[in-house]
Amino acid sequence: MTSPQALRESLDGKWRHVREQSRTELAAMDLAYDHSLSLHEARERVLGQLKQLVDTGTPAAGFRTENGGTGDPGGAVTGIEMLAQFDLSLMVKAGVQWGLFGGAIENLGTERHHAMIPGIIDLSLLGCFAMTETGHGSDVQSLETTATYDPSTDEFVVHSPTPGSRKDYIGGAAEHARVAAVFARLITLGEDHGVHCFVVPIRDQNGDDLTGVTTSDCGHKGGLGGVDNGRIMFDQVRIPRENLLDRYAQVDDQGTYSSLIESQGARFFTMIGTLVRGRVSVGGSASAATEVALSIAGRYALLRRQFSGPSGEVVLMDYRVHQRRLLPLIARSYAFRFAQNQLVARMHRIQTESDPDPIAQRELESRAAGLKAMQTEHATRAIQEAREACGGAGYLAENRLTTLKADTDVFTTFEGDNHVLLQLVAKEMLTSYAKEVDGLDPLGMVRFAAASMADIVKERTAAGNLIQRLIDARPGADEEHDLLDRGTQLSLFEDREQHVIETAARRLQNADNADPAEAFEMFNNAQDHVLKIGRVHIERVVLEAFTAGIARCEDEEIADLLRDMCSLYALSVIEDDKAWFMEHNRLSDDRAKAVTAEINNLLTKLRPHTELLIEGFGVPEDTLDAAMLG
Amino acid sequence: MTSPQALRESLDGKWRHVREQSRTELAAMDLAYDHSLSLHEARERVLGQLKQLVDTGTPAAGFRTENGGTGDPGGAVTGIEMLAQFDLSLMVKAGVQWGLFGGAIENLGTERHHAMIPGIIDLSLLGCFAMTETGHGSDVQSLETTATYDPSTDEFVVHSPTPGSRKDYIGGAAEHARVAAVFARLITLGEDHGVHCFVVPIRDQNGDDLTGVTTSDCGHKGGLGGVDNGRIMFDQVRIPRENLLDRYAQVDDQGTYSSLIESQGARFFTMIGTLVRGRVSVGGSASAATEVALSIAGRYALLRRQFSGPSGEVVLMDYRVHQRRLLPLIARSYAFRFAQNQLVARMHRIQTESDPDPIAQRELESRAAGLKAMQTEHATRAIQEAREACGGAGYLAENRLTTLKADTDVFTTFEGDNHVLLQLVAKEMLTSYAKEVDGLDPLGMVRFAAASMADIVKERTAAGNLIQRLIDARPGADEEHDLLDRGTQLSLFEDREQHVIETAARRLQNADNADPAEAFEMFNNAQDHVLKIGRVHIERVVLEAFTAGIARCEDEEIADLLRDMCSLYALSVIEDDKAWFMEHNRLSDDRAKAVTAEINNLLTKLRPHTELLIEGFGVPEDTLDAAMLG
Repeated sequence: MTSPQALRESLDGKWRHVREQSRTELAAMDLAYDHSLSLHEARERVLGQLKQLVDTGTPAAGFRTENGGTGDPGGAVTGIEMLAQFDLSLMVKAGVQWGLFGGAIENLGTERHHAMIPGIIDLSLLGCFAMTETGHGSDVQSLETTATYDPSTDEFVVHSPTPGSRKDYIGGAAEHARVAAVFARLITLGEDHGVHCFVVPIRDQNGDDLTGVTTSDCGHKGGLGGVDNGRIMFDQVRIPRENLLDRYAQVDDQGTYSSLIESQGARFFTMIGTLVRGRVSVGGSASAATEVALSIAGRYALLRRQFSGPSGEVVLMDYRVHQRRLLPLIARSYAFRFAQNQLVARMHRIQTESDPDPIAQRELESRAAGLKAMQTEHATRAIQEAREACGGAGYLAENRLTTLKADTDVFTTFEGDNHVLLQLVAKEMLTSYAKEVDGLDPLGMVRFAAASMADIVKERTAAGNLIQRLIDARPGADEEHDLLDRGTQLSLFEDREQHVIETAARRLQNADNADPAEAFEMFNNAQDHVLKIGRVHIERVVLEAFTAGIARCEDEEIADLLRDMCSLYALSVIEDDKAWFMEHNRLSDDRAKAVTAEINNLLTKLRPHTELLIEGFGVPEDTLDAAMLG
Repeated sequence: MTSPQALRESLDGKWRHVREQSRTELAAMDLAYDHSLSLHEARERVLGQLKQLVDTGTPAAGFRTENGGTGDPGGAVTGIEMLAQFDLSLMVKAGVQWGLFGGAIENLGTERHHAMIPGIIDLSLLGCFAMTETGHGSDVQSLETTATYDPSTDEFVVHSPTPGSRKDYIGGAAEHARVAAVFARLITLGEDHGVHCFVVPIRDQNGDDLTGVTTSDCGHKGGLGGVDNGRIMFDQVRIPRENLLDRYAQVDDQGTYSSLIESQGARFFTMIGTLVRGRVSVGGSASAATEVALSIAGRYALLRRQFSGPSGEVVLMDYRVHQRRLLPLIARSYAFRFAQNQLVARMHRIQTESDPDPIAQRELESRAAGLKAMQTEHATRAIQEAREACGGAGYLAENRLTTLKADTDVFTTFEGDNHVLLQLVAKEMLTSYAKEVDGLDPLGMVRFAAASMADIVKERTAAGNLIQRLIDARPGADEEHDLLDRGTQLSLFEDREQHVIETAARRLQNADNADPAEAFEMFNNAQDHVLKIGRVHIERVVLEAFTAGIARCEDEEIADLLRDMCSLYALSVIEDDKAWFMEHNRLSDDRAKAVTAEINNLLTKLRPHTELLIEGFGVPEDTLDAAMLG
């Protein structure tokens, strides 16, 4: 019998010690959400739990040593992700305080602001991250809140000029936060320099709104009952000039604005880019919650029997349709785990370098955006399926699945709406592509595309040599079971990405010269095509990460199992997009049918390992906390 | 400008008067779910609302005049469906009391039981429907609760012999129900006659459990907070012999069992069949809730602007991706409305006939099962998409979408798990098919299939002549825009169904002669194929109902709009299953691409009518109750 330990180690990645610590430490804390509490009580309880976390080391890990932290960003993100296995309200509260609010202070502020960090770590200073407004969430560059410099008092005046400029959905704003990191348009000497971040005290020691500040409560939500989301309006609130987080732009006491980054757009995106950790945490947490849900539904499917078979009542997992419902989702969760481990390691490396490469940084942001979108989409779909796969029992709160679903539901929206994020990834890909083909006329571009395969797509996102070797060694399409060959799968993914980018680029190549209305029309008509770029790119990234992860696994039995899981992931992705592969002559009718047949073979092969596969997730059985599992 | 009135009338169907009455009457009742209440308070509130409904006529409509009702089953089902537009807890409470519990008493009982009906209508007798057990939900024939006749006292002894035999998830069992319609195995003179229904008092006037009865509470659920779902264990509970609902089977005072239906299976399914109204109501209610969600998300998409376009910020609905997200779902909801209207009319006709045709009854059951599965699946998907399409605002309870999602979530499970229901439809289709090809050897079967198109599939489910005419008049596949032709669409749907049934039948034809383990294996390997039969059959039924509905529309402008919506429905269904059509040579690569192109054309054409299309649902704007709509 293969040991789950080796499988778990393979999936746990570099911050295994953080995972192992959390598994025991958090299990001892009684973190399960209590549905019988009122909103206010639930929030107080989660705040209490947050205080218990201070000593675990996770909060300090997120900050640099010179600011009072321990300088382990990978550990910090992994620690937050582990919270998601226990309670998502707590995960979000932690993410807001230490990740978003603390991250803004550390990354956008300078020394004088960093003095706040010890208080942020130990919760003596509770903050919130006031970016989104009622009128603007996705398009944050168009935020309306203003911070106007008044040289006569050396202060900024923070103001909400319209109903739409109200800060909205802000975690911590309804009850707990004393201070807000407020994103507002910096105006000085009559000029609007775009959105910057300011430290604005909002409540006094008694929790009452300060003068000019009006907070209110978003009330009940679809889930996350322990998070006090609220709204903030500012009526000419004065703050010292020093409250501008001034790492990337400064205002002197005369009101003169200066920044080393000239373009307003570039400056804004540089600032936003430093906050990448939020997306990494949300993607990882969505995945962690999904693993819990699949662990619950998978274990139930191994216990529950229904309808008579040849030898008594049949266990659910023995039904082909039930295997089809759960195993491909488990495979996808495996794939995302490898991709997330890779992303966290890369983030950690970049964020601990003294002089990180701006291109690597930008790639990290794009990768984090795309993975967040795909992981949260997977979470929504997989947790829903897990709930339904448990029937009526799945609908009871005591079995947790509905809570996991309700709590993660907003993950597709916050830290960037998934559709917007996938477009961001696509734009990055298209820009890189355009650079490659720069200067080519349309005909030249087609020739280029056909003849040389754009390097931008061929660039490996992981274990480059290995992946190229696999692709080069792939069998012919007429060989039996060629679809199970990793090189074939990698090549199908890569080829699809290449084609989708090229054809989109061709559709859009004249947009630059068109008038604005025409250009909008061209882009809008191609919008679903553009979104597909983001999706297929990330699907390739994930497959490459899975492939690289298997190569690192030293236990041959476990590696074999992972190889089957990886094929199940790859073929499920291909099956979901089968029509595309057929329309574009990448799969013949017969090979398309073979995709489904191979998936069914894999299900038969993997079925006996269901329990082991669940144990691989490393959610200890006694922390699943689902009554139906006994 | 086309009037929404004519569109609404077309969609409202035969029980328009009930819909119109509900729209004003229910709006005046303050039915919106209140999330600030505790579970107990929410339940009390919904019970109070239920009492307000007594005088609306909906409860009485569900019962025959001779029993104290007004004999309008179509009106009763439509009335329940309308409740779903306001609050789903109330809809479920009403469905349990008047539909399931009342329906069991009326349809399975005889005169002496019918005396309870006036009390059921006016709520002086609150009941519950105790079918599902912890161990058996989908496979109700295997329920374990026993009702053993004791001739010495002329009583049945109701008993829960195992932990798995506990009645579970029973609406009303936690607090309100005084009496239960209990499904239990009837045992007399040492013989088990299978599952029958018994009237069992469970609580006294004070709400305390009666001797031998132990009720408990399912607690918090994913939604439906106003429904008091609970559990019941019976410890040798004695009830008079007369409490057997004895329309289909009787036991005399000697304990002799008799029934006009000889086979235990046939008897059970005859009894269950009389309860078809539950499924019709759940499907209709899921659709109604979906219409509310799409009305909210659709109206928000017409208000909300984000990101700059050529002339200011762009309204969400102008984005192609947003059109793609919402309009096909709206088209599908239109399609289901026509199918539901047809189903309700058929149900009404059969249930008001003095001597209904058993074949028609069986078809009704199958249709209701399949439509319930597809409508509730659509609800889950569409409400989720509506929530996401409204971003952060969509996550606030004040905008209702999360409540609609949470409340309808269990609809895919209760009144029959969707997977089980689709298999039921498939079995019905395969049985009919087998009858047609009976006696043919495998070769003969292939010949038969190729030569004559099985009549069972060709049988029209609505407006037979019209649909045949459309199919006969369809253009060639090489004609431009042929995919927009209704005959082409109908023929693609019909042909797919035919092929899926035939190939499944061929895969399974040897199962009868195989040993049980082999037969199970054969069936299990084909399980996803079998499920597909149910799905494609219902998709055809729905398309035919939509087609017939348009033919009845007298307003030409509205009919034009409906024609486009019908094409959007048909092409969306084809797009979702494009790989199948290509694998089976029903669509060439080019025509497959044309499907997507035609959908995009339809979106452009329908976009200007979005508001009208939403108004067609007939959910008055002031009852949408979503704060973000202002």
